[in-house]
Amino acid sequence: MTYLDEILKSRRDTRHFTEEQIPDAVLEKALQAGHWAPSVGLTDATKYYLIRSVEMKKAIKDLFLDYDQKAIALTENEPQKAAYKALKLEAIEEAPLGLVICYDRSVLNNFTIGTVGSNEAIKFSSVCAAQNIWLSLTEQGYSMGWVSILNYYQFKELLGLPDNMEPIGYFCVGKPATDYDNQPMLQQLNWKQKQQNPLVEELSILHQSKVETTFFEVPNEINSAAFAKAVQYKIDQKTKPTGSLGVLEVLAKQIAMVFQTLEPKIVQPNIVVFAADHGIANHGVSAYPQDITRQMVTNFLDGGAAINVFCKQNEINLSIVDAGVNYDFPMKMDLISAKIGKGTQSFLHTAAMSKTEMQLCFSKGATIVKTIAKTGSNCIGFGEMGIGNTSTASVLMSVITGFLIEECVGKGTGINDEKLQQKIEILKKSIENYTGEADLESKMAYFGGFEILQMAAGMLEAYRNNMLILVDGFICTVAYLVAFTKNPLIKKNTIFSHQSAEQAHKKLLDYLKVDAILQLDLRLGEGTGCALAFPIIESAVAFLNDMASFESAGVSSKKL
Amino acid sequence: MTYLDEILKSRRDTRHFTEEQIPDAVLEKALQAGHWAPSVGLTDATKYYLIRSVEMKKAIKDLFLDYDQKAIALTENEPQKAAYKALKLEAIEEAPLGLVICYDRSVLNNFTIGTVGSNEAIKFSSVCAAQNIWLSLTEQGYSMGWVSILNYYQFKELLGLPDNMEPIGYFCVGKPATDYDNQPMLQQLNWKQKQQNPLVEELSILHQSKVETTFFEVPNEINSAAFAKAVQYKIDQKTKPTGSLGVLEVLAKQIAMVFQTLEPKIVQPNIVVFAADHGIANHGVSAYPQDITRQMVTNFLDGGAAINVFCKQNEINLSIVDAGVNYDFPMKMDLISAKIGKGTQSFLHTAAMSKTEMQLCFSKGATIVKTIAKTGSNCIGFGEMGIGNTSTASVLMSVITGFLIEECVGKGTGINDEKLQQKIEILKKSIENYTGEADLESKMAYFGGFEILQMAAGMLEAYRNNMLILVDGFICTVAYLVAFTKNPLIKKNTIFSHQSAEQAHKKLLDYLKVDAILQLDLRLGEGTGCALAFPIIESAVAFLNDMASFESAGVSSKKL
Repeated sequence: MTYLDEILKSRRDTRHFTEEQIPDAVLEKALQAGHWAPSVGLTDATKYYLIRSVEMKKAIKDLFLDYDQKAIALTENEPQKAAYKALKLEAIEEAPLGLVICYDRSVLNNFTIGTVGSNEAIKFSSVCAAQNIWLSLTEQGYSMGWVSILNYYQFKELLGLPDNMEPIGYFCVGKPATDYDNQPMLQQLNWKQKQQNPLVEELSILHQSKVETTFFEVPNEINSAAFAKAVQYKIDQKTKPTGSLGVLEVLAKQIAMVFQTLEPKIVQPNIVVFAADHGIANHGVSAYPQDITRQMVTNFLDGGAAINVFCKQNEINLSIVDAGVNYDFPMKMDLISAKIGKGTQSFLHTAAMSKTEMQLCFSKGATIVKTIAKTGSNCIGFGEMGIGNTSTASVLMSVITGFLIEECVGKGTGINDEKLQQKIEILKKSIENYTGEADLESKMAYFGGFEILQMAAGMLEAYRNNMLILVDGFICTVAYLVAFTKNPLIKKNTIFSHQSAEQAHKKLLDYLKVDAILQLDLRLGEGTGCALAFPIIESAVAFLNDMASFESAGVSSKKL
Repeated sequence: MTYLDEILKSRRDTRHFTEEQIPDAVLEKALQAGHWAPSVGLTDATKYYLIRSVEMKKAIKDLFLDYDQKAIALTENEPQKAAYKALKLEAIEEAPLGLVICYDRSVLNNFTIGTVGSNEAIKFSSVCAAQNIWLSLTEQGYSMGWVSILNYYQFKELLGLPDNMEPIGYFCVGKPATDYDNQPMLQQLNWKQKQQNPLVEELSILHQSKVETTFFEVPNEINSAAFAKAVQYKIDQKTKPTGSLGVLEVLAKQIAMVFQTLEPKIVQPNIVVFAADHGIANHGVSAYPQDITRQMVTNFLDGGAAINVFCKQNEINLSIVDAGVNYDFPMKMDLISAKIGKGTQSFLHTAAMSKTEMQLCFSKGATIVKTIAKTGSNCIGFGEMGIGNTSTASVLMSVITGFLIEECVGKGTGINDEKLQQKIEILKKSIENYTGEADLESKMAYFGGFEILQMAAGMLEAYRNNMLILVDGFICTVAYLVAFTKNPLIKKNTIFSHQSAEQAHKKLLDYLKVDAILQLDLRLGEGTGCALAFPIIESAVAFLNDMASFESAGVSSKKL
């Protein structure tokens, strides 16, 4: 055994001291030994504080006692508790000198060699210094005891340490009163036996690290399965538990798939409100007079409606379409005219429109959306306004899905129970009255609304331009139902914004096997659901593009 | 200078080795020196792995190079970059032996003396062992170099280390090819000069700890039946059917009532994320290791987390609070330090925190919010991060509401059914083990989390400053429950952002008789629900302020 070995072996964590003061020369020599310890990047971040004040020692002892109570409570059984209580674990008040060893974490404010993997290297340097001091004190016939049973934040406050100084421990320094029979005190007192030998193992098998590197190539042509996997991989590599962004993850994946890129962007979002009147409104199915359609269109153009406010807030371009309002508007630059007629006929007794009018709806609706697509927009929301149009929507839903009309009817915007019953009777009678062909187109012309069919055509056109399609509430979803019947692939591009308070809407969404983003008890229409859901859709895109990955953030993705 | 001093002084962090192999006897003697190092509570938690495989060294070198690139990018200017690149910082492939020194954190599963203040004592013991080995190698004419520039998670994977083994570093061991002119290499190469002397200061002034005790004052309630009527009238005069904006109308009314104005404005919205660790996490209740809390805080500060993305998108000011993460962060201007401790104790056997610590939580949480209120902000959202905090939240919910723990527990972020059952058992046992007082404060200290209690205090302070309070998911709602129990009036000012996928959250919201704005299947926390709901809250304010009234738009409000 060498001289060094003797020192290493006889170094003790000491809790029993004589009253002898520690000479300055001994202390200086010991602190110099600490100074010779490694200092990562030569930061010299270790700092020593000396405490001789009786009052301060007393306050530190009180802190110790507070945490020692906690430790006693942590023991696992009564014999252990008794054994623990019998142990002397500090000598704060008896030891002639208190030493606080700190590291200054402000050194990390500048570039520091050796801390990029973990900045703990700074504090490890201070621990090495502590060990050097311990060895030097041992060589000189002195010793110290490491006290770690303290709340370090209260400790720092008591000492008035600056925020950047972090203590690794409080050390009681002095002349040992015992050598504990040349073994650790905890072993001498039979708390625990120290292992005979160090634990050593040779490693020779290289485990393959699972960090792959080539994922984010966008396939030239649509290879959906592989691309879907790449998108899902990107989502799952974000710094969050798998699936924890719920609906946003579903949206992000859908949008990436639509645009076939891992970095999708929503460009120039639009909402288009299609307004039209309905002959059926003359039969008391609505709480409001037909003229409200016209008044509300004016309100849209003046910027006073809910959809104006929400589009402005969320920076969505808003267009208003006159698909067939029962009014001649003055020429206004900002009203898109796609008028098929001054409202439909009432389908209680006859067809709402002719097949030619229906074709005109398809053509005009498509043209409006194509024009918007040409501006470079890749996202379009659909909204509607039309007194009586929940009745039209209910009947279309019933004849297309086969649900009973009672299941397809709601209170619309504001009728009472009595009126509701009356509405159901009228719509039931309308369906019974139908004697036309059984095909969808014939039924659409018979029961259709100008704005509903224009929206359906607009959605199909949006799909052809690979735009993101935002569907609003019940009436808009019926337009989607028409479009979906024509081309089920449209579903890929469609996002359902809001599940309205109309009971039929929930039923229809279930029928279509889709979920809406919001449930805010809205029953307004106008595309307000699209506008309100839009920030959440943007959030989905934003997290996919801007969140850090586990790798880039240095966050572990591994579960326990 | 003594013999020991000579060794201490000549010990070098070595990066230049001869090809000479290291004899077994030298290595054994050095590892025995390591074994003589302090071992807190005699845990013998240090373990040594030896690496001689060329293939493994190569793979480790690659890992080093990866992080070295990161380090290069971190340098502050071109001359520093050039100087850094010229440095040789490792000898992974040249040194004959690689040594990995680990500590086994599984020893913390049992009661361990000296770890109640901070469980870092375990790893500090291993660092002392490293220093002893270094000194022994030096005495024997050998040396080593400490490599810390590595991603430790990939490193562990490459080596196939068990999850509980945590490396403090990789050490290149061999015969030194130079003594660097008997000084640190970084000094020899003029990177930096080592300080002449250790930094020492004597402390003699005891600072008073600033724990206050009275927080929960109740402000006078504003009597405002007439004002409520005026707000409702304004809402009902907007150009839309009565009630058709659903939840937005409820929000608009609430916000107008809080700010006592018909034209409320949200000013400088803030979200504050409180992060802390939980002792209960050591008992396998979470799917993720505790260190993720620290990693995610770093991610918040770097702007890479979900909450960063959503706050940026919605122009919400974001602050991050270290309420008690088990880690010492470098000094960063943008991390608010309100650290109570390095994580709570596990409440399985003892109190999570002392009553003093609980008071500190109340005081610090309130101070943070008061500071934000002083900037003129009138809206604050609360978020949290803390591995294991769903367990803490569940137990608090159970002891406060009286619901069975089974009703208060969810899967957190990503555990399976088996783990869930285990979690329930542990939490049930924790509650059964409680033998303290029946009052709420005693229970809060016993089961509390630093971040949860700081949030609760922050909410009460927000109420005192008449701010709008946005509550995030389950854990945040439990903080609200604590605050609500102290002062039920807080409800007036509180908006619940998101109903999380945790079943207990729905139960708790029902118990509190409140509804959340969104149901997006999120289970992330961080305040993400607040950030995502914020545009909808803004929409509520916007429609109240900016929509036309029937009168101003010339729209008839008359029903048929």
